[in-house]
Amino acid sequence: MKNSNIPNDVINKIIEVPKTIIEAPINLLKQLAPKRKKKASSKIGLPPGSIVYLGEKKVEKVTIKVTEYDEAGAETYEIKSAEEIDPFTDTPQVTWISVCGLHETDFLKQIGEKFKIHPLVLEDILNIDTRPKIEITDDYLFIVMKLVLFNPDQKILETEQVSFILGRSFLFSFSERKDEIFNPIKDRITSQLGKIRKRGSDYLLYALMDIIVDHYFLALEKVEERIELLDDEVINRTEKSHIESIYNLRNLLLHIRRSVYPLREIVNQLIKDDSDLLDESIEPYLRDLYDHTIHITETIEQQREITNGLMEIYLSMMSNKMNEVMKVLTVIATIFIPLTFIVGIYGMNFPNMPEMNWPWAYYAVWGVMIAVVGAMIFFFRKKNWF
Amino acid sequence: MKNSNIPNDVINKIIEVPKTIIEAPINLLKQLAPKRKKKASSKIGLPPGSIVYLGEKKVEKVTIKVTEYDEAGAETYEIKSAEEIDPFTDTPQVTWISVCGLHETDFLKQIGEKFKIHPLVLEDILNIDTRPKIEITDDYLFIVMKLVLFNPDQKILETEQVSFILGRSFLFSFSERKDEIFNPIKDRITSQLGKIRKRGSDYLLYALMDIIVDHYFLALEKVEERIELLDDEVINRTEKSHIESIYNLRNLLLHIRRSVYPLREIVNQLIKDDSDLLDESIEPYLRDLYDHTIHITETIEQQREITNGLMEIYLSMMSNKMNEVMKVLTVIATIFIPLTFIVGIYGMNFPNMPEMNWPWAYYAVWGVMIAVVGAMIFFFRKKNWF
Amino acid sequence: MKNSNIPNDVINKIIEVPKTIIEAPINLLKQLAPKRKKKASSKIGLPPGSIVYLGEKKVEKVTIKVTEYDEAGAETYEIKSAEEIDPFTDTPQVTWISVCGLHETDFLKQIGEKFKIHPLVLEDILNIDTRPKIEITDDYLFIVMKLVLFNPDQKILETEQVSFILGRSFLFSFSERKDEIFNPIKDRITSQLGKIRKRGSDYLLYALMDIIVDHYFLALEKVEERIELLDDEVINRTEKSHIESIYNLRNLLLHIRRSVYPLREIVNQLIKDDSDLLDESIEPYLRDLYDHTIHITETIEQQREITNGLMEIYLSMMSNKMNEVMKVLTVIATIFIPLTFIVGIYGMNFPNMPEMNWPWAYYAVWGVMIAVVGAMIFFFRKKNWF
Amino acid sequence: MKNSNIPNDVINKIIEVPKTIIEAPINLLKQLAPKRKKKASSKIGLPPGSIVYLGEKKVEKVTIKVTEYDEAGAETYEIKSAEEIDPFTDTPQVTWISVCGLHETDFLKQIGEKFKIHPLVLEDILNIDTRPKIEITDDYLFIVMKLVLFNPDQKILETEQVSFILGRSFLFSFSERKDEIFNPIKDRITSQLGKIRKRGSDYLLYALMDIIVDHYFLALEKVEERIELLDDEVINRTEKSHIESIYNLRNLLLHIRRSVYPLREIVNQLIKDDSDLLDESIEPYLRDLYDHTIHITETIEQQREITNGLMEIYLSMMSNKMNEVMKVLTVIATIFIPLTFIVGIYGMNFPNMPEMNWPWAYYAVWGVMIAVVGAMIFFFRKKNWF
Amino acid sequence: MKNSNIPNDVINKIIEVPKTIIEAPINLLKQLAPKRKKKASSKIGLPPGSIVYLGEKKVEKVTIKVTEYDEAGAETYEIKSAEEIDPFTDTPQVTWISVCGLHETDFLKQIGEKFKIHPLVLEDILNIDTRPKIEITDDYLFIVMKLVLFNPDQKILETEQVSFILGRSFLFSFSERKDEIFNPIKDRITSQLGKIRKRGSDYLLYALMDIIVDHYFLALEKVEERIELLDDEVINRTEKSHIESIYNLRNLLLHIRRSVYPLREIVNQLIKDDSDLLDESIEPYLRDLYDHTIHITETIEQQREITNGLMEIYLSMMSNKMNEVMKVLTVIATIFIPLTFIVGIYGMNFPNMPEMNWPWAYYAVWGVMIAVVGAMIFFFRKKNWF
Repeated sequence: MKNSNIPNDVINKIIEVPKTIIEAPINLLKQLAPKRKKKASSKIGLPPGSIVYLGEKKVEKVTIKVTEYDEAGAETYEIKSAEEIDPFTDTPQVTWISVCGLHETDFLKQIGEKFKIHPLVLEDILNIDTRPKIEITDDYLFIVMKLVLFNPDQKILETEQVSFILGRSFLFSFSERKDEIFNPIKDRITSQLGKIRKRGSDYLLYALMDIIVDHYFLALEKVEERIELLDDEVINRTEKSHIESIYNLRNLLLHIRRSVYPLREIVNQLIKDDSDLLDESIEPYLRDLYDHTIHITETIEQQREITNGLMEIYLSMMSNKMNEVMKVLTVIATIFIPLTFIVGIYGMNFPNMPEMNWPWAYYAVWGVMIAVVGAMIFFFRKKNWF
Repeated sequence: MKNSNIPNDVINKIIEVPKTIIEAPINLLKQLAPKRKKKASSKIGLPPGSIVYLGEKKVEKVTIKVTEYDEAGAETYEIKSAEEIDPFTDTPQVTWISVCGLHETDFLKQIGEKFKIHPLVLEDILNIDTRPKIEITDDYLFIVMKLVLFNPDQKILETEQVSFILGRSFLFSFSERKDEIFNPIKDRITSQLGKIRKRGSDYLLYALMDIIVDHYFLALEKVEERIELLDDEVINRTEKSHIESIYNLRNLLLHIRRSVYPLREIVNQLIKDDSDLLDESIEPYLRDLYDHTIHITETIEQQREITNGLMEIYLSMMSNKMNEVMKVLTVIATIFIPLTFIVGIYGMNFPNMPEMNWPWAYYAVWGVMIAVVGAMIFFFRKKNWF
Repeated sequence: MKNSNIPNDVINKIIEVPKTIIEAPINLLKQLAPKRKKKASSKIGLPPGSIVYLGEKKVEKVTIKVTEYDEAGAETYEIKSAEEIDPFTDTPQVTWISVCGLHETDFLKQIGEKFKIHPLVLEDILNIDTRPKIEITDDYLFIVMKLVLFNPDQKILETEQVSFILGRSFLFSFSERKDEIFNPIKDRITSQLGKIRKRGSDYLLYALMDIIVDHYFLALEKVEERIELLDDEVINRTEKSHIESIYNLRNLLLHIRRSVYPLREIVNQLIKDDSDLLDESIEPYLRDLYDHTIHITETIEQQREITNGLMEIYLSMMSNKMNEVMKVLTVIATIFIPLTFIVGIYGMNFPNMPEMNWPWAYYAVWGVMIAVVGAMIFFFRKKNWF
Repeated sequence: MKNSNIPNDVINKIIEVPKTIIEAPINLLKQLAPKRKKKASSKIGLPPGSIVYLGEKKVEKVTIKVTEYDEAGAETYEIKSAEEIDPFTDTPQVTWISVCGLHETDFLKQIGEKFKIHPLVLEDILNIDTRPKIEITDDYLFIVMKLVLFNPDQKILETEQVSFILGRSFLFSFSERKDEIFNPIKDRITSQLGKIRKRGSDYLLYALMDIIVDHYFLALEKVEERIELLDDEVINRTEKSHIESIYNLRNLLLHIRRSVYPLREIVNQLIKDDSDLLDESIEPYLRDLYDHTIHITETIEQQREITNGLMEIYLSMMSNKMNEVMKVLTVIATIFIPLTFIVGIYGMNFPNMPEMNWPWAYYAVWGVMIAVVGAMIFFFRKKNWF
Repeated sequence: MKNSNIPNDVINKIIEVPKTIIEAPINLLKQLAPKRKKKASSKIGLPPGSIVYLGEKKVEKVTIKVTEYDEAGAETYEIKSAEEIDPFTDTPQVTWISVCGLHETDFLKQIGEKFKIHPLVLEDILNIDTRPKIEITDDYLFIVMKLVLFNPDQKILETEQVSFILGRSFLFSFSERKDEIFNPIKDRITSQLGKIRKRGSDYLLYALMDIIVDHYFLALEKVEERIELLDDEVINRTEKSHIESIYNLRNLLLHIRRSVYPLREIVNQLIKDDSDLLDESIEPYLRDLYDHTIHITETIEQQREITNGLMEIYLSMMSNKMNEVMKVLTVIATIFIPLTFIVGIYGMNFPNMPEMNWPWAYYAVWGVMIAVVGAMIFFFRKKNWF
């Protein structure tokens, strides 16, 4: 199948070199922190609804792609400013305006005015630290999601914010960088695969959300791969550094969990919503999506418990290593300390030590010492120490 | 009783050789992982409702068995394609179509068209990683369950997906491999044991679900056996490898829990459902089934807590072993180091050591040393070290 | 008071010999396991509602005692078969039929037919592994409870299943063995103590349930006694085997908890039930019973937390013991190893060691050694090691 | 302020000598256990509503004080028996009958008959092991609370049961010993401080409950003091016995929690209750009380988590101590064992050891030994061991 | 931007010197304790609604600033007593009365009388230990919040109580010290930035609450900085004192959590409130605020889990250090103890030791000893001990 070739390629590459990704969670963790810092300190005191982008610039240039389609055909083109949107907002077709890159805020302001979007919604789109959420108004539906994307070059999991504004015949999607992950949908629209062209903007929203949710499965697979690697390593070749890997894995799971948990509530509200923005026929699809989010949260919990178990194994293994060290010391010391005592006895300079004069005394001492060693070894064998 | 001879045989065999199954959970864990991997990576971007089977082929050939029965009689035969189903769908009898093996998707497509099943339902039947779920429509009721089956040959617990579509007078059951576990029901239908022939397809659904739930009890018994074995082993003969067994047992319980937990909600929804697909007289049976699922989840939680306790015992036992090692070292070193010092004194070469010339000096040194050893042994006895 | 002499006797005996019951939980745990095993494996595939008893035979002979009473008088007699029950079912009196022993299933079948009891209810009475439950129908009310009974001879806690069927003027009680614990109620009925004779079968049900709940208090007291014993032992005389006792106590608490938890819901449903089987005046009594079940579950949780704390103390104590061992080793080795070195110096055979010829050299060496020992002892004292 | 002088005195004394109270929780724990034991074993089989007091006699003589007041004036006097209550029950004034000591049950029986109190309520008043609860009937409102009182003489926290029966113009309060903690309220009534004289019996109930809740704050302060003491001790002067103190503190918190938790529900039900026993104007006061109970439960949870942290610090500190011991041993052994080897070499008696004859050999050996010691010390310094 | 210059300055300074703030949480913890103590002990027995300030005096002089504004203009001035408030309470403008310092209770009493505020509300304003809460009456809305403020001079987090009373056209704010954190809002009012001048007192309340919530983000950033510092330190340079830092961080998080958790419920109640005090157009802003409180609580939970992980790493690292110590001891002892034995043999004085007379015996002994050392080193290398 052509439309999924990029992720598939990626996956195949990764499966060959899984060992090198053990370091990834650290990178991920470090990378997320600066973002948050920038935000909080500079926004205190700003009036709410201020349309300022505080994230880092992830793409050079903001691109705005428009895709219009109905059952008859589909057309895609790029636009430069929000003024060009005017003509097609009232067409009967579905219009998907995909914005990649958020650092040109003028476009967003124009959109806000033209489509009467609440300033807080615009602020949330630009604030890349927004918690996943849904806002339902009479005229539009606003969703913020987190995309957890595996970066095959750096072998790390990257988090990105994606927002949607769904209107009656249009859908805006906003992403921080290029929206390559939506390519399968674009292919389906152009190639007329599946029913997507026969359905409205609500089905398009579902399809895009579904892709994002599928990427969570992919991310958790990466985590699972790592857990299996670590599992094997910890049990067979415990090393001091493993604890850091487990700690980072757990923090990574905490991080993904925070992205996924609110999603359950979001999809649930979509299902319960009875506005006319969502057609009734979309419900089975949303319920399916809901099942997937439950599945993902359950997987995260399971993986968290498994990593907790791994931590316990690690600690036990380290303690076993210590045990080994102690055993070696004990065996050596216990065998040689008595022997040293014995030879010490006959190093004494007393003139009248009767044994000294026995001709076979020296050999007798050796005999005693060998007997002591034998007894010790027998004792250690019985204790199963080596 | 004839109808339960297969599981009973199995059980008897196992009870004789329980020691060899300690390794099983590892196998189970490994075996489950690849499935999930295959799924997630290849389905991203596929249109929802795509009828593709991504699991492994567990039986050579798909077999479709049809059982028709009413109070008067029962008849079973095999069919090759969905076209043969036509004639009996509108009979007043109960028709049970049992499909074993999922890799021939054409059959499913035909069924979907003939019985107007939603494509997402068909997708869920084929996706063997579906979370246990229930879908209730006006025309049919769709249930996905996980069967946890003890494999007596390999001594491992295997998980398999079983789905049901219940219509007004028919029931479809889909399983990944042969449906031998349903043999007791088939026997009851043919031999007219119990009330099954007097009742509708809803009672048949209940009977099949009940069998699956009974197998959970069986699986948890296997887990309990293992816990008891480990319990005994860990307390009396702690070994380094036990921690891995405990860790695997816990992961196994996590895995079973995920199969069982959604079941409570499924059975609960069946009870609350007031569609005409389920007769009122079935309610006591469903409530009984519900009680069983609660019982199972409680047992899982209890076993999880017991394994947690086992882990603590293991860690404590390992630490006790270290304690033992240390005690041996301390006893030996503490007895012989002072002695070695004493004999060292009289190994010195000073010309004017008065003791040297005393005739009984050598024997006096021995006396002192024996006194030291005695004091040490007294001290250690008081400390209860040996 | 006469009517409570048996439990009081029991308690008094136990309080005198509490030390010997430390081993009890192990017995209890072992004893419960076989029951479950027997059940699950042999019932798979049996039609629901099969009236088969799978538990062990705890009394030689099934006895069925009938007690009829109203305000005017009370009468007790034994019957042999269900046929004898006929005459008194429609009397205005309260009729209490107490069945001890469950292995004669014919009686139950006859009861089922005469009183139109659902087969699943009969199955639950015989299946001694049923989860505590309540079933409310228009004609009767069915309750399954677990009795946790302290066995004074073997000093163990035994679990037994007790079921009740409450009709408008009758009450069936089914127990696995003799129902001596209900003797106080029988005494109250015959001696007209309290209001029991003035009230209906619902009050009788309450009175019996209350006795069972009171026995939970008794069981938890036994657990508390053991916790206090262990508490004292672990803190003052930690031994390797204590961890097993703690582990068994925790498993015992897990086991009791499973018997008690469902009870809250059962009593709650009795309170909320507005069928005419329960008189309104019974409500304060049921609320009191409800408070007791809450009290018990809280006590169990508290005891679980206390045993967790005990486990931590145990582990810390074992680690302290190791610390002690290490200190002894360190003190001895640290004092004597330098001394051995010193005496070693003057065991060297160099011809030109100037000290050798000093007349007071030998005494000087002793002086140095005593100084070293003094310094070491001072150092250890400062470190508070002995 | 005069009315709070007793508790203030108490507090001042305690703050001066806080170090001595470290042992208190042990006493408390021991003291609570016997009560429970006595109860459960002797009440099995007693008819419900039996008016028997099973607690210990905490005051010599039962005293019954009556306080009558309205806006115009207040009057307090002592009575001997319930018969004297008759005249003032139907006065328009508020009548507060305060019963201190519960071992004279006759009084209670008379009250029960005169005021038509349900026998189960009377039983709960006498059963000092009753779980905190509320019973609302048409005629009266019954509340059981636990008072946790700091005893300044023994420096322990004591638990006591206090019950209230609120009628339309009267309030009964029952306590196990003297009710000195209610003195501030009595002072407010006599001195007309605050609004208490202008309000009804419901406000009096609130005021008494508020005092009890304030004593929880006091108790938790004591716990906090102890936590701070322990915190400081554990971090700076870890001792083996600290673990017992932490364990006792945790059990104490568990115990207080059980007294406080039900209070939330009790106050909540008072707020929601719309009977005419409680005036509407009392609601803000009850909500305030509710906030206090939430505050207390949160404080308990916080303290529990802090003690858990303390436990971890304790364990870590003990492990650090062991580390220290090991380091001393290692340093000494590592320095002297090689030296002993070196001097051993030249203790050998081989006739042809060339070094023996070098004139400066002895000094060279000393040089080598000093170099070895230097290298060792350098190595240990680099490892930061001392 | 001018209006946020103070916090920004602060932040920049801190980021440069983050290492020195590791000690802060200890200070914070100590500082909070005395407050609580003072309160509970001195208030027992006081009538509810007593207007007494029991906190410490945090500013020299109480200042009361009044800000009046509408779309046309804004005016700020200071007043001395509540009597001056009269004239402007009934203006159509929004009047914001900001009270800094709580130790002059007369002002509060006057306010209470003039605006008919319930005495319990006034008590809560002065009691700086009040749990965050909301009270909604017909005439006003009362909110208590905790401000967690980073003090850049002492580098500690300080907690302060802020209360609001919102009326139809006025808003009272009460803080314990100077309200510099509200400067951005004052600037927005005077400079007409944003929509604040076009909106009512409800929007002003939202803006002030929003500032407080933003400071939680700031505080958690400080905590995160510290976690990252500790994370790095613990993994690379574990020291004994780290456990105290982790323990203090956890207690700090517990403390912040208690301030933030009730906030969710407060904002939620504001959203659900349909009184006319809050305009409908404020709802999106409150929902945004609600999302922020959820975000904060999630962050706290995540940080708590991370610190738990840190604790585990710390313990593991300390145990690794011990392992290292043991290895050094074992390596040294294992190499030299056998050697000492060998040289001991030839220190024996037996006359007839054949080896003694071999000319190359001395060299052979050296050979044997070198071989032993080589074998030991090979063994240790294989074990990966150095």
